[in-house]
Amino acid sequence: MSAPGNRPAPELIEGGFGVEIADAPLLHNGLNLADIAHVLALRERGIVADEPAGRLLGVLLDAHKTPVEEFGYDPAFGEAYNSRERRFTAEIGTDAGWLHAGRPRREAVRIAMRLRLRRDALDLIDAACDVVRATSTLAAEHAETFMADQTYLQHAQPSTFGHYLLSFAYPVQREIDRLFDDLAWVNRSPAGAGGVNGSRLGYDRSRVAERLGFDGVIEHTRDAMWQADGLIKIVSTAVSLVTTLAKLAEDLEIWSSTEFDYVSLADGHTRSSVLMPQKRNPYALTMVRGEAGVLIGRLTGMFAISKTPSARSDNLIFAYGEVPRALELAGKATRLMAGVIAGLSVNAERMYDALEGGFSQAADLADYILATCGLDYRTAYDVVGTCLRTASAQGLRGVDITAAMLDEAARERTGEPLGLTDAELHDVLDPRAIVSTRVVVGGAAPDVVRDMARRCLADAEASAARSRELRTAFDAAESALLQAAADAAELSR
Amino acid sequence: MSAPGNRPAPELIEGGFGVEIADAPLLHNGLNLADIAHVLALRERGIVADEPAGRLLGVLLDAHKTPVEEFGYDPAFGEAYNSRERRFTAEIGTDAGWLHAGRPRREAVRIAMRLRLRRDALDLIDAACDVVRATSTLAAEHAETFMADQTYLQHAQPSTFGHYLLSFAYPVQREIDRLFDDLAWVNRSPAGAGGVNGSRLGYDRSRVAERLGFDGVIEHTRDAMWQADGLIKIVSTAVSLVTTLAKLAEDLEIWSSTEFDYVSLADGHTRSSVLMPQKRNPYALTMVRGEAGVLIGRLTGMFAISKTPSARSDNLIFAYGEVPRALELAGKATRLMAGVIAGLSVNAERMYDALEGGFSQAADLADYILATCGLDYRTAYDVVGTCLRTASAQGLRGVDITAAMLDEAARERTGEPLGLTDAELHDVLDPRAIVSTRVVVGGAAPDVVRDMARRCLADAEASAARSRELRTAFDAAESALLQAAADAAELSR
Amino acid sequence: MSAPGNRPAPELIEGGFGVEIADAPLLHNGLNLADIAHVLALRERGIVADEPAGRLLGVLLDAHKTPVEEFGYDPAFGEAYNSRERRFTAEIGTDAGWLHAGRPRREAVRIAMRLRLRRDALDLIDAACDVVRATSTLAAEHAETFMADQTYLQHAQPSTFGHYLLSFAYPVQREIDRLFDDLAWVNRSPAGAGGVNGSRLGYDRSRVAERLGFDGVIEHTRDAMWQADGLIKIVSTAVSLVTTLAKLAEDLEIWSSTEFDYVSLADGHTRSSVLMPQKRNPYALTMVRGEAGVLIGRLTGMFAISKTPSARSDNLIFAYGEVPRALELAGKATRLMAGVIAGLSVNAERMYDALEGGFSQAADLADYILATCGLDYRTAYDVVGTCLRTASAQGLRGVDITAAMLDEAARERTGEPLGLTDAELHDVLDPRAIVSTRVVVGGAAPDVVRDMARRCLADAEASAARSRELRTAFDAAESALLQAAADAAELSR
Amino acid sequence: MSAPGNRPAPELIEGGFGVEIADAPLLHNGLNLADIAHVLALRERGIVADEPAGRLLGVLLDAHKTPVEEFGYDPAFGEAYNSRERRFTAEIGTDAGWLHAGRPRREAVRIAMRLRLRRDALDLIDAACDVVRATSTLAAEHAETFMADQTYLQHAQPSTFGHYLLSFAYPVQREIDRLFDDLAWVNRSPAGAGGVNGSRLGYDRSRVAERLGFDGVIEHTRDAMWQADGLIKIVSTAVSLVTTLAKLAEDLEIWSSTEFDYVSLADGHTRSSVLMPQKRNPYALTMVRGEAGVLIGRLTGMFAISKTPSARSDNLIFAYGEVPRALELAGKATRLMAGVIAGLSVNAERMYDALEGGFSQAADLADYILATCGLDYRTAYDVVGTCLRTASAQGLRGVDITAAMLDEAARERTGEPLGLTDAELHDVLDPRAIVSTRVVVGGAAPDVVRDMARRCLADAEASAARSRELRTAFDAAESALLQAAADAAELSR
Repeated sequence: MSAPGNRPAPELIEGGFGVEIADAPLLHNGLNLADIAHVLALRERGIVADEPAGRLLGVLLDAHKTPVEEFGYDPAFGEAYNSRERRFTAEIGTDAGWLHAGRPRREAVRIAMRLRLRRDALDLIDAACDVVRATSTLAAEHAETFMADQTYLQHAQPSTFGHYLLSFAYPVQREIDRLFDDLAWVNRSPAGAGGVNGSRLGYDRSRVAERLGFDGVIEHTRDAMWQADGLIKIVSTAVSLVTTLAKLAEDLEIWSSTEFDYVSLADGHTRSSVLMPQKRNPYALTMVRGEAGVLIGRLTGMFAISKTPSARSDNLIFAYGEVPRALELAGKATRLMAGVIAGLSVNAERMYDALEGGFSQAADLADYILATCGLDYRTAYDVVGTCLRTASAQGLRGVDITAAMLDEAARERTGEPLGLTDAELHDVLDPRAIVSTRVVVGGAAPDVVRDMARRCLADAEASAARSRELRTAFDAAESALLQAAADAAELSR
Repeated sequence: MSAPGNRPAPELIEGGFGVEIADAPLLHNGLNLADIAHVLALRERGIVADEPAGRLLGVLLDAHKTPVEEFGYDPAFGEAYNSRERRFTAEIGTDAGWLHAGRPRREAVRIAMRLRLRRDALDLIDAACDVVRATSTLAAEHAETFMADQTYLQHAQPSTFGHYLLSFAYPVQREIDRLFDDLAWVNRSPAGAGGVNGSRLGYDRSRVAERLGFDGVIEHTRDAMWQADGLIKIVSTAVSLVTTLAKLAEDLEIWSSTEFDYVSLADGHTRSSVLMPQKRNPYALTMVRGEAGVLIGRLTGMFAISKTPSARSDNLIFAYGEVPRALELAGKATRLMAGVIAGLSVNAERMYDALEGGFSQAADLADYILATCGLDYRTAYDVVGTCLRTASAQGLRGVDITAAMLDEAARERTGEPLGLTDAELHDVLDPRAIVSTRVVVGGAAPDVVRDMARRCLADAEASAARSRELRTAFDAAESALLQAAADAAELSR
Repeated sequence: MSAPGNRPAPELIEGGFGVEIADAPLLHNGLNLADIAHVLALRERGIVADEPAGRLLGVLLDAHKTPVEEFGYDPAFGEAYNSRERRFTAEIGTDAGWLHAGRPRREAVRIAMRLRLRRDALDLIDAACDVVRATSTLAAEHAETFMADQTYLQHAQPSTFGHYLLSFAYPVQREIDRLFDDLAWVNRSPAGAGGVNGSRLGYDRSRVAERLGFDGVIEHTRDAMWQADGLIKIVSTAVSLVTTLAKLAEDLEIWSSTEFDYVSLADGHTRSSVLMPQKRNPYALTMVRGEAGVLIGRLTGMFAISKTPSARSDNLIFAYGEVPRALELAGKATRLMAGVIAGLSVNAERMYDALEGGFSQAADLADYILATCGLDYRTAYDVVGTCLRTASAQGLRGVDITAAMLDEAARERTGEPLGLTDAELHDVLDPRAIVSTRVVVGGAAPDVVRDMARRCLADAEASAARSRELRTAFDAAESALLQAAADAAELSR
Repeated sequence: MSAPGNRPAPELIEGGFGVEIADAPLLHNGLNLADIAHVLALRERGIVADEPAGRLLGVLLDAHKTPVEEFGYDPAFGEAYNSRERRFTAEIGTDAGWLHAGRPRREAVRIAMRLRLRRDALDLIDAACDVVRATSTLAAEHAETFMADQTYLQHAQPSTFGHYLLSFAYPVQREIDRLFDDLAWVNRSPAGAGGVNGSRLGYDRSRVAERLGFDGVIEHTRDAMWQADGLIKIVSTAVSLVTTLAKLAEDLEIWSSTEFDYVSLADGHTRSSVLMPQKRNPYALTMVRGEAGVLIGRLTGMFAISKTPSARSDNLIFAYGEVPRALELAGKATRLMAGVIAGLSVNAERMYDALEGGFSQAADLADYILATCGLDYRTAYDVVGTCLRTASAQGLRGVDITAAMLDEAARERTGEPLGLTDAELHDVLDPRAIVSTRVVVGGAAPDVVRDMARRCLADAEASAARSRELRTAFDAAESALLQAAADAAELSR
């Protein structure tokens, strides 16, 4: 056993402490709160006397008012906790030593991280709520903006831009719900875990948890200190959210091309080319897609970091920075997509022209033949396919198909005409009429879409309200904690 | 528009259809059920007449009884769905053509995947319940098996093997709870989504969902067909679970070494060396760790697959195989760890010797000095540290420290002796006595551990019961569906 | 130390041996060759006598002729090596026991894996050569197929489809070169490493390496047995290759849309919709993109598997299956893209129309103004931008811009007209003329493209020839090995 | 087409420009050099006149002397390039506009990134050379420090710490070689690619490449601008390197435990516990392992970012920061491990005691029996195994085995005694004597290890020398470029 006080090697300062200290800006605020709550708890139990406790609280309150860049975090002396001890000792001498009673450094930092993450989670929830709001609102406006739904980027069946858009509101709302679940894990208190299994000093874990605004304690103390499943979980949810948004971004990028010309981004979401005066690049979409890629890597990294024996410090040391930064980046991407959706110009005419110019009514036509002529679907499909190839070769569109053309195709495939009339075909071939038949639950008929949009919007509003309540509660708890510290510091003077 | 019927290129058979057909064994059963439910729905709506419906149901029931390897899935003709159409047409001619009314191939396969995944999810839940059971049971047995808790693999503070073990029961139970949430996403019906926004044929989506044993429909039809957030989510949970188990496996591997000799695996979980007769390798642990690594990659792959525009087939085509295989592998790893824990031999004597041979009581000693001598923690820590270095240099252990030694160290650091007695030191230095002070919520005191173990076990039993109920419900729905099909097939004869 | 012969637990059979045995089909052939080379080496050193060696070689040659599914690999008895020992002992009794002299199981499997991988590497190289061939050939054909180069999917500057295509030939050729480097790591012999640091039995490592067709030995025996950097490396190269091809696939998917209509895939690379008769989906492209996603996960998995202490069996056990399967999937994707490129139809007319309909000549116009009117680029850019906005608002195209329009814009921005003539503008605005100015190294001028295409093709041919030579050498070495075994087996009868 | 000059939306500033500007510190230096080289090239071709060129070079040289934080990069105005244009225009008005002639922003940044990465690559190479040096040097010192080689962390066969250590020198040297290959890709010039296919202004690409110290141009201009295979490749190599080092770190962590006590880290690589005075945690090892995990995620992210269509800005925008940061982190981890190895204390006595206390000579004993008694290996193995179990049950060690004990075991298994003498057994059982038999290529015999160590050290020195030469060449080219700019700026005054 060697004496302490040795200097860290330069390569340890660079590759160890320096790497940790880079996360100090993320943790500074939470460390102050965690330390304050700890001192208050020690004081309440009579473990530390009022006077030194008061002095300690005084320097901690002072730290709380000090911006991180002025605090004096310096890797030459270790990670953030060491710099803090150094500063406090310089200020009040051995009284600073009471801070460490019954608590390892990691407990302070674990608490600080959770205090930070609960805000990050709310920020991300709020951004996702904005996406659902923007999507639902725009979807309702475009419940009758007809376009060809596409798979493989090929025209499939007639649909609307509103129905398309809403298919993103649902998964984003599910991610919001998951984020609230994840927040429930985040917002629990590890405080009072001691070295790992509690401390002999006694400590009211529930009281400290309440003071910090946590929803109770994490029961098992070693679980509280070391398990990171909830960290991985919240990053996973955030990455899944942005991956979903990146899909929308990729669609919009394609539809912003001259060739599609379905949509265009607001100027504030594009950027000009430095070289090419004609170009307005949909830069926002590129950034969201790239951010999804970065985030997929961040989640993978979290899993890779976790693949060690248990109770290994790297599991958490690297989470301190990686998790809040991932949530923050996810928040940026999400806010950007919310803005993009809200600012989107939709070229309904061009969408309709493309729809009308194609053959997206084919499956409906086959369904109609099946339902009225008694042909099985595969036979009806073959008849329609034959007819479409003829039409296509003649430069005709789906809406131009006549009963006579169909009869000819039917005779070729089955030996019999179908006997439909041009009048009845008109409705079957009209893309707008087709969409109006989609009255099934969740279908594209305008009223169905408007109703879904209304409910999605309501869900987003409810989620946003819930977020506001939580934020208010966090604010209140933290204020009360600071006030209690100020009172105790005052008393001891 | 070209004519259909062209042959796929050999490289498409190899790199496209062949890749898909390799998943047919995972989907065969679900495809049969999905097709049967679809035909019953068409028949109920009068879209297909009783007679062809009956014939179609007949061949589908026959398919259901046919093992996948005898069914005739052949990539030369396309993916699984194409082989099915080919077989059914060969059997009953154009009547087979009714199967496709109002439904793309993807809808059938999406349903089949969910029918498969809900079983995979339950299997994984059951395996995880076994882990919690085994862990809780063993933890209760070892509530007084003393060992040094370790961080950085260095002795930290006195604890017990029981407390250690239980720190895995909690996160595994959390994953069980998450898996039930994930299952709620899985077990909803996409049926009736049609091309993507419903179909003109009308279709009672709720009725079909109920018949298939789903907990209702996924409302928005395009969401139902294309969004994959829940797939990523369930894989994420499964991988997180196995990553947690791999931590336990890594700990046990280290503790199985000759040098530690804390635990040994049951013979049935080891394997002999082919070359070295003395070796009994803890092979099970290696496999679990490797499986965690493979699974981290599988999840990353799912995210990478998802990074495309929306409504791209690869998003789901590759999920058909990747997701059930990932859950299956997670299940294997989890069952293996459940077995390992249940069969573990614990060398309590060796654990205690190692504990007693070290200095893990140091922090408690410092806490005691703080509480009784009025020294702040950092000063107390320095005194203890000084004393320990002296003891260590003399070949003494923590339990050998005397009041005189402490006084000497205190004089060196503070100029004053502490004035403690050897009698009071005895309890402060005894690791067992230290553990008995950990009565805080979630601490290591034996009764606290036994109480937690009891509740963890109860949670696992409750989860297992819930899983059994769901399984029974799935069985019942599927049986009823087959019976309805048999009745309809019979009627039409 | 417990007695051997205990039965593996069922969960170990499922989650351990069963997982390993699933890779037996990949390793069977190599295991036979590795065992044969080992026995021949033991026999040459006189460690095993001619007669038992002959018998052993006899059963090994027999194993070599036995298809893997008939061999009797059975996880109930362990992984593949155990099943082999079991079979050989059943056939020739204790003579089978000589096989294990001086060699752990892992050495046999490591060799088998490398024998497999060197073939997989060549297969992938060959596929990549086909991509370069197809790309270069098509590029040369389309050296004058004009199109707008696109960034952000927005028209940038006039270019050609040939120049575009060639931008894939170069990185694919680089991956080919890397694959040859990676193969150099793969094709070295770990044989003779013994337990890990050699064996007391003596063994000519070079002789065995030569017999197996390896390019020499891996010097350090523990490095030979345990380090996996080269495995990760070859997977990394393969995944990088497919990721590059997926970019091309994504471009082609977009360009296959009705709205773009730049290219269409050969029928043999598409698939019909089951529901929608009008749809010919570019299925091959979807599969390549999805395979890229799967492979990104496979590589991540390899890294995650590697994150353990050293000499952990899982590092290699999981590589046995993951690495060849990843290379195989990469090969399938690569062959599929080679086919797609070779079969592609290019709609040159549509490309030109889109080009001519836009404003891609803007930067050239600004460059021309800069070069002839003495305006700095930013000013020239502003003049052109102003002019384009006017033209765009009037429904004009870039080619319609007149000297007068430019003068007006210039006056607006600078107060002065430019004084250019319509005659000189004609060439500056003609996209074809613009492309002809790109004579810089690597530029888009047709002759430059044709020259690059010729050299790319030559590089691919040279690589393919090198691959053929290596394959011939592997074949020859393996044949000679089998012949030597047959001779020795014959002799001992 | 909308007018430029619109303000970016706040969410674009946050989630777009702000994200990019965060990388300005990495690119600032390279951007200055790239701009200077561009202006010199334009001036040489007479595209920009001497006077404005001189003024432009003047502000660029000034920028070069300005620290990045004082430069005025501000996301409110766009990414870094926009801020630069803004500053230069403020300084010299429209003369700044000449900078953009024939070059998009991306070309400047691509060059800047490569100028940065070639330094990062050398830094990483140097760090890796230090690892090989430290490893080889320590290995030579411990060529006779006997220890049990371990697999599954179980004693396998007698070996030395020197042989063990050297098994890391080889793969690290391979990564060094790969980094030089990767650097060859990095250090080529994309300059002169223009929009994407060259520019009409003419431009001597080779001359610019030479001026910037590149090893020539990347031929195909679109390849030069957009393909990122080499970026992925260098990150892959760096991550593979750190993953290998993390294995060593994990081994050392285990061996630093009290139970093993094989090695201890220098004080400068440990850190004290804040709570537990007895603890000296091997903190450096934890950091290296965690950094490996982070880096695995960074590589995955690079692949995920790359999974897009071609010519998408996110492919490179995110690489600008991710790649140099990944290399930098890899460098930190590598330097830290070099320090750890160089400072390691090795407890040879404890290693030998553990070795002697076990049964690692078992396979050698079986080999000896095979070679002298004519028993096949499996039979010899069974005899030895039987004997060891008896010895183990009696508390004996491998070295305590007698000829009589072996005879008894042999009789039990084969019915016959072996007839060996205690005298001959002595050498077979002595671990040191066993190691001395490992004279095979790459084996553990001390002279073999010393010879390998000598050659590894020489390779590292040669690599370090090559790195120095390259660095000198980069320095020289960059100095000459700045001098040429200064001369041109001076001339024009």
